[in-house]
Amino acid sequence: MSILVVGSIAFDSVKTPFGACERALGGAANFFAMTASLFTKVQLVGVVGEDFPQEHLKYLESRGVDTMGVQQTSGKTFHWQGYYGYDLNEAQTLKTELNVFGSFNPRLPEPYKQAQTVFLANIDPVLQLQVLEQVTKPQLVALDTMNFWIESKNAELKRVIAEVDILFINESELRQLADERNTVKAAKKMQTLGAKTIIVKRGEYGALMFHEQGTFFAPAFPLEDIFDPTGAGDTFAAGFMAHIDQAGRFDFATFKEAMVMGSVMASFVIEDFSFDRIKRLEKSEIDRRRKEFKQLTL
Amino acid sequence: MSILVVGSIAFDSVKTPFGACERALGGAANFFAMTASLFTKVQLVGVVGEDFPQEHLKYLESRGVDTMGVQQTSGKTFHWQGYYGYDLNEAQTLKTELNVFGSFNPRLPEPYKQAQTVFLANIDPVLQLQVLEQVTKPQLVALDTMNFWIESKNAELKRVIAEVDILFINESELRQLADERNTVKAAKKMQTLGAKTIIVKRGEYGALMFHEQGTFFAPAFPLEDIFDPTGAGDTFAAGFMAHIDQAGRFDFATFKEAMVMGSVMASFVIEDFSFDRIKRLEKSEIDRRRKEFKQLTL
Repeated sequence: MSILVVGSIAFDSVKTPFGACERALGGAANFFAMTASLFTKVQLVGVVGEDFPQEHLKYLESRGVDTMGVQQTSGKTFHWQGYYGYDLNEAQTLKTELNVFGSFNPRLPEPYKQAQTVFLANIDPVLQLQVLEQVTKPQLVALDTMNFWIESKNAELKRVIAEVDILFINESELRQLADERNTVKAAKKMQTLGAKTIIVKRGEYGALMFHEQGTFFAPAFPLEDIFDPTGAGDTFAAGFMAHIDQAGRFDFATFKEAMVMGSVMASFVIEDFSFDRIKRLEKSEIDRRRKEFKQLTL
Repeated sequence: MSILVVGSIAFDSVKTPFGACERALGGAANFFAMTASLFTKVQLVGVVGEDFPQEHLKYLESRGVDTMGVQQTSGKTFHWQGYYGYDLNEAQTLKTELNVFGSFNPRLPEPYKQAQTVFLANIDPVLQLQVLEQVTKPQLVALDTMNFWIESKNAELKRVIAEVDILFINESELRQLADERNTVKAAKKMQTLGAKTIIVKRGEYGALMFHEQGTFFAPAFPLEDIFDPTGAGDTFAAGFMAHIDQAGRFDFATFKEAMVMGSVMASFVIEDFSFDRIKRLEKSEIDRRRKEFKQLTL
């Protein structure tokens, strides 16, 4: 099987209490593709500027990521600048330079239209819908979003949520979107909009899944050294979606295992800047941490 | 078996976004005794003023709580006044009237000195040590504490931690006590002080146990209606300690099950003001929620 992902490909300049990186490779779809490619084939849709290194696209190809859907246009690549204090749960944005991403118009290459598993990373819900309309018969569609779209394109966002199977969302943003402080009630409200499964991301406190058949909780793996949380949410989604894509089943038990795989993958990406840790990650390390993770709960 | 608990017996005046209560029964040792008495016999040590209702002491006795260790002296009972905003994780203290608690001098009745399981609820570490010195041969001792003692009696607190088996502590207070931002490292630091097991309380995000044999995580049970979080930590500790006391074993597996029982009991107490929910709690409800809880994780 394979996964179609659409979203940002960017440069990130990040400061944490433990160091800093300048214009490192980043962007939601990039993090997602890097991680999911450890498990399955990936079709990547996004846009980069003239300044984007061709070697990275080639490197993605070498990992089994199809980059036919990555448009390269004149202008500069999307650039995000931010920092984290000791509370690594919340990124502070210093600057967002949309650049070529500002006029992004996602068009799927012909083979992508047959995609069965789709991840709509955090972009304008209008574009998310536009991508979805081009996919002929998807079996499983997930989307991620953020407060910016909740505030500026609320109705459009709700229209996309009605069309997807899974909504990934930060806890505070879920509360904002649902206009409901209690997480359980807020998730139920979102389920009535259409998305049957709501995955609430809680940063260092893990993630909570509200599924038709029940509720499931995956803690964040307790780490001694957290370096840079950038991309943790997208890496979580990648582990989650890739596990399901590999399993080829959509039952509750598979979704639970997918939550564990999401949490395991997120625990790696935060151990270094950008996706440097994912780059050098061995299959045996994933297996080992997955076993350790399972001992964390009953 | 039975548990000896020493700590505050108080009146709480609490405001939450969902209502308010005036001078309701509270205090750490009171919450603990109410909850633990559902599982085992309890010996209670504390102090109350002339204004404290005799009926409550009688009621505790009817639940199998030995109140011989509760001193009644002239003056008023300890009174705590606080409120919670929508972020129910953090209590805001409006007023603390120590009253008779200010000159509390815990003396154990003769039979209490044989106690095997001891819970030192959040009081002055000097008093915690004083209680411990009166117990002849305890098998399992746990203590809870708070930022006030971390700041004002740091050396004394560390001396008690050296003498106990289990430290219950809020995550932010653990970081403060260990002077270390990372929770894993902070817990390890505390283990080197003496307490072999560190239980990190994370409010609505559950609790994390660092045990010699491994790490374990218990989520908070996701609830639609959270009414008043007062006493949740002590109720958690009561479920935890009572489970171990009942099992009579001190292995890692028993400690894991104790974490689940702690989380289950805490999930009840927050459903109403004071310990009203614990008062009307049925054994069958505990069993049911424990089963539901286990489905939350793998």
